Amino acid sequence: MVAVGIIGASGFTGAELLRLAASHPDFEVVMATGDSQAGTRAADLYPGLSAAYPDLVFEPFDADRARGLDLVFLGLPHEASMAMAPELVGHVGCVVDLSAAYRLKDASHYPTYYGFDHDQPGLLADAVYGLPELHRSELKGAQLVATPGCYVTTATLALRPLVEAGLIETTGVIVDAASGVTGAGRKADLAFSFTTVDENMIAYGLLSHRHTPEMEQEIGAQLLFTPHLVPMNRGILATCYAKPAAGVDVSTESLAALLRERWADEPFMVVTDGSPSTKATLGSNVVQVTARYDDRTNTIVAIGALDNLAKGASGGAVQAANVALGLDESAGLSTVGVAP
Amino acid sequence: MVAVGIIGASGFTGAELLRLAASHPDFEVVMATGDSQAGTRAADLYPGLSAAYPDLVFEPFDADRARGLDLVFLGLPHEASMAMAPELVGHVGCVVDLSAAYRLKDASHYPTYYGFDHDQPGLLADAVYGLPELHRSELKGAQLVATPGCYVTTATLALRPLVEAGLIETTGVIVDAASGVTGAGRKADLAFSFTTVDENMIAYGLLSHRHTPEMEQEIGAQLLFTPHLVPMNRGILATCYAKPAAGVDVSTESLAALLRERWADEPFMVVTDGSPSTKATLGSNVVQVTARYDDRTNTIVAIGALDNLAKGASGGAVQAANVALGLDESAGLSTVGVAP
Amino acid sequence: MVAVGIIGASGFTGAELLRLAASHPDFEVVMATGDSQAGTRAADLYPGLSAAYPDLVFEPFDADRARGLDLVFLGLPHEASMAMAPELVGHVGCVVDLSAAYRLKDASHYPTYYGFDHDQPGLLADAVYGLPELHRSELKGAQLVATPGCYVTTATLALRPLVEAGLIETTGVIVDAASGVTGAGRKADLAFSFTTVDENMIAYGLLSHRHTPEMEQEIGAQLLFTPHLVPMNRGILATCYAKPAAGVDVSTESLAALLRERWADEPFMVVTDGSPSTKATLGSNVVQVTARYDDRTNTIVAIGALDNLAKGASGGAVQAANVALGLDESAGLSTVGVAP
Amino acid sequence: MVAVGIIGASGFTGAELLRLAASHPDFEVVMATGDSQAGTRAADLYPGLSAAYPDLVFEPFDADRARGLDLVFLGLPHEASMAMAPELVGHVGCVVDLSAAYRLKDASHYPTYYGFDHDQPGLLADAVYGLPELHRSELKGAQLVATPGCYVTTATLALRPLVEAGLIETTGVIVDAASGVTGAGRKADLAFSFTTVDENMIAYGLLSHRHTPEMEQEIGAQLLFTPHLVPMNRGILATCYAKPAAGVDVSTESLAALLRERWADEPFMVVTDGSPSTKATLGSNVVQVTARYDDRTNTIVAIGALDNLAKGASGGAVQAANVALGLDESAGLSTVGVAP
Repeated sequence: MVAVGIIGASGFTGAELLRLAASHPDFEVVMATGDSQAGTRAADLYPGLSAAYPDLVFEPFDADRARGLDLVFLGLPHEASMAMAPELVGHVGCVVDLSAAYRLKDASHYPTYYGFDHDQPGLLADAVYGLPELHRSELKGAQLVATPGCYVTTATLALRPLVEAGLIETTGVIVDAASGVTGAGRKADLAFSFTTVDENMIAYGLLSHRHTPEMEQEIGAQLLFTPHLVPMNRGILATCYAKPAAGVDVSTESLAALLRERWADEPFMVVTDGSPSTKATLGSNVVQVTARYDDRTNTIVAIGALDNLAKGASGGAVQAANVALGLDESAGLSTVGVAP
Repeated sequence: MVAVGIIGASGFTGAELLRLAASHPDFEVVMATGDSQAGTRAADLYPGLSAAYPDLVFEPFDADRARGLDLVFLGLPHEASMAMAPELVGHVGCVVDLSAAYRLKDASHYPTYYGFDHDQPGLLADAVYGLPELHRSELKGAQLVATPGCYVTTATLALRPLVEAGLIETTGVIVDAASGVTGAGRKADLAFSFTTVDENMIAYGLLSHRHTPEMEQEIGAQLLFTPHLVPMNRGILATCYAKPAAGVDVSTESLAALLRERWADEPFMVVTDGSPSTKATLGSNVVQVTARYDDRTNTIVAIGALDNLAKGASGGAVQAANVALGLDESAGLSTVGVAP
Repeated sequence: MVAVGIIGASGFTGAELLRLAASHPDFEVVMATGDSQAGTRAADLYPGLSAAYPDLVFEPFDADRARGLDLVFLGLPHEASMAMAPELVGHVGCVVDLSAAYRLKDASHYPTYYGFDHDQPGLLADAVYGLPELHRSELKGAQLVATPGCYVTTATLALRPLVEAGLIETTGVIVDAASGVTGAGRKADLAFSFTTVDENMIAYGLLSHRHTPEMEQEIGAQLLFTPHLVPMNRGILATCYAKPAAGVDVSTESLAALLRERWADEPFMVVTDGSPSTKATLGSNVVQVTARYDDRTNTIVAIGALDNLAKGASGGAVQAANVALGLDESAGLSTVGVAP
Repeated sequence: MVAVGIIGASGFTGAELLRLAASHPDFEVVMATGDSQAGTRAADLYPGLSAAYPDLVFEPFDADRARGLDLVFLGLPHEASMAMAPELVGHVGCVVDLSAAYRLKDASHYPTYYGFDHDQPGLLADAVYGLPELHRSELKGAQLVATPGCYVTTATLALRPLVEAGLIETTGVIVDAASGVTGAGRKADLAFSFTTVDENMIAYGLLSHRHTPEMEQEIGAQLLFTPHLVPMNRGILATCYAKPAAGVDVSTESLAALLRERWADEPFMVVTDGSPSTKATLGSNVVQVTARYDDRTNTIVAIGALDNLAKGASGGAVQAANVALGLDESAGLSTVGVAP
């Protein structure tokens, strides 16, 4: 068994890790810390954990206890994660960080988008971006994995094959996306209260959302990203617009063929001729993608959908951890969501 | 009092007209027809109408009874509306058609987008597009008013001022929008069942939605329109992307100033520096709009929000009718929605 | 015009009062205070108020400015309301208190259910319970009106006629009810976050909810009340169970006849042979009720539905104020909700 | 591997069986029939099945192919199930019927509650009621299992221990419950459209719901059952009221102790001192129960919560099948739901 620690386990991504770990054949959660919730029973915070974790109590972080574990997930604020990683890397089998602390290869984005300077350039360079569909070989044996942002995974898996194939202009790309509320994390905030969110749709982070440079890094194109909040618990849908590259012939059929070929061997990728929906991915690790070419306006539309807490965060983290540790990549991860 | 008939009153737009008519100081509904629901009590179909219309029974259409009315709303399928309008125009004070039958000045779009040929070119030419914010003077005394499509109203009121001012390129515009489920009308269809829609977001009508040529007509630009279905009852949010016209200087501030000036005297337009939300318009006739300029990608983002059944359909129809008949334009229309 | 002040206007009941006042032909809001929100624009807190109240800013309470107003609504915490009423009663035309401070005629319930001793026994005795359907004649000219609790209005209007007619045992009554989330007020609390409430139903306040003694007072029976939270923004449904009184013959028909007769002249009461639904009342001041008799188990089921913020709080308060001030009882109040 | 057939696989319970089978270590689905959907790809009807069942096509029923299977689930209308069971029992390892055809030991309830006469008295007598928590020993090796109704499982697991212990009066019990919309099955019906259900709560089946005699059979008490529809996809919450039996001393503590003892060894039962919520069970096979005693009104309140499609239907069916076939009772069944 893989001895697993979850640092910052009391947030939504932590709870989702506990959910996935409960059915992972190789994982044994031996430590779950939650500083602000230290002393709280996990089942009191998340009643859905009552049957699987009746006795689990969040504990304060203790570096001595963490060292020597096979796998440690970090579910901490970005800056806290940046600071904690060096304490753990090299002392545990693998560190999988769910924050953005080690995602951006260009450290200059941190002050701009996250408000702090990055003081771990060496670790930042060594960290592997935890998207197996793009970085599988680097992930094998990795000591520090940076789990992608939820919006980034969605848009990247829809658009990256088009960039790789040289099909689209790499400027002027539009990513218009919407997320369920869990994307905001566990917060007592009126902006995420039922009364605010229910029967509501609103754009936020206009022009400046933090996932922008991360998307540009992984997709390989300059883009404008507009996120929206919609009244769902989970789920991201990204609708992306790009112009065909000069001199390139595209069609809806050729785009579909490209996506199918690129993702043919991926256990969690579904290329559809229909319209991806968040509900088709609810609770599973699946990503659905499609693409269309509109010759009337000479525009490509590529769409991706996933569950932001599953593949978009904790499920993606487990998948990357599985690869890093040499386990079955699909272990503990479902391909069927809870729908209807 | 204005003697009002509603033909096709049993659908969602009909029910919304009944709701609005109940608090309109000048309207008296004297006829409400619903062919498939003839004989059904309105309150049995819509229990919320029980107190205001305890005795109203939908009746079959009778042209003789319709003639002579001051105002007739048509809530019929497109082709049925096209056929009925000539029977009424000239025989009633004003006909307000909520279908698309008389919206598109270029009749050649009808076979392409609606599947039938338009056989009333004269009436089509005479019909006034029922958006008072753009066509107020033509609406005064109009005999046939074509109420705009819900998506069209949303995008047009956000984008049209930019086109009028020559600020944006009139090709390559993207309108990415989402609607609540009432937009689909009253249908026993699994696609609109709670189980399908709840916790779901999905794009539909990819590349080919019927509101495309109508938006192009009213906005004055070539555009690609992608509608989505989100788990709300009412509400449309349209997020629109355009490039500044060559040689034009724009900024978020100048865009805001333009929108404020253009809509300054409109009773239902709210220009906000915040982010328009559908909930801010729920149940009211209000449209919220904003715009931003992103110099990093040289892109303008314009956003509009409204209630698709209110301003987006029946509320807009009442507003246009008020103008056509010379009544107070705001009569019967609320400026405060039902939120929280 | 009636000069209206709203003290504690920044909460949900305050926002609903502002919504209703905007279409009230006789009300002019001249003061809206919100201590914690003093200095905040109403439209920034509630974007739906932007069009109707573009310039309204919540101000701190000022007794001098309040005195002399025709009508003052109090939307304050219970104990604060208890303390403020004596400062205003006699100095303004009418005080309508939306808290529970002046609802319970037996002051001994206050320490038990609200955690404070009532120190205004005189005002408590003079206050009129603001349910026009039961206390209309007392309300005329009242100086202090105590607006009923939302659950209480729902259950009382379904059950009170049965008690008045001597039809049911006045012990052992069960009131099983559920509410939308606005009933909890405007609170940044994880318990009312979208993620907690969406796709969830839960009972709360088991055995001990504060509305219990108030229901017993107005219904005239000893009862057990169980409230639930359901994923809706607005709406209360109360399903009530009682045994027929000894020796009384009841039937579903006789119960329906009794309800219809009792509520025949009420502008907002709908007695239905169908099943009341919260949606039929959404945004309106309507209450729907029904009753059934099950001879198999010798049990009466009575059901009521309303909008908790409208008739259940601010709409009921406006209705009571209309009666108190001698205005048209229905002024400013809708009988058609926003549905579909 | 257990060769599994699902007859009537295209409905919601069929889709849920497919979901559960995909992660069941011993199940291999070799046949999935759906008469009205024969020829349809499962993934086209339920896009969430795309990754796990990319090639599964619903086929017409073929008795020859069904015979010899280890396990057959029937997801058919009640009367169709009654007729098909004799064709299969004895020819397959075990038949698990999700309809009500073999649940009611008193056949006279069928004409009253289901509108047909039961013509298989022998099979009805032999069928085992598929609730392992009450009938585990009978289930071992059973050839025909009748999966309980979703409401029945909820109320029974909350109330049955109290009856067994002689704690409550076995008349006058009230079961007031609410369900998410999937309980109604896959139907193109306006009553279950998003627009009808969203922001709505309504009672239905007043006095006469079909689960009444089934609850009375399994709980062992005469009761009145009122179901409600609430705007959730999945989930049932049952709030039950009973009087203590004459001469019996009860307290909230003794009730909790009783429930804990009774369900101590059950893998899916959670007895809580908190308030059971549907969300705590979403997507898992868990049932949460609690009980309280109110001495003021001398009433016991017992509450149960579960996922109606999981433990309330297909999950319960898999659990019962596991017992019948001698597999690990928990195989393929989750104890952690998808929440947040």
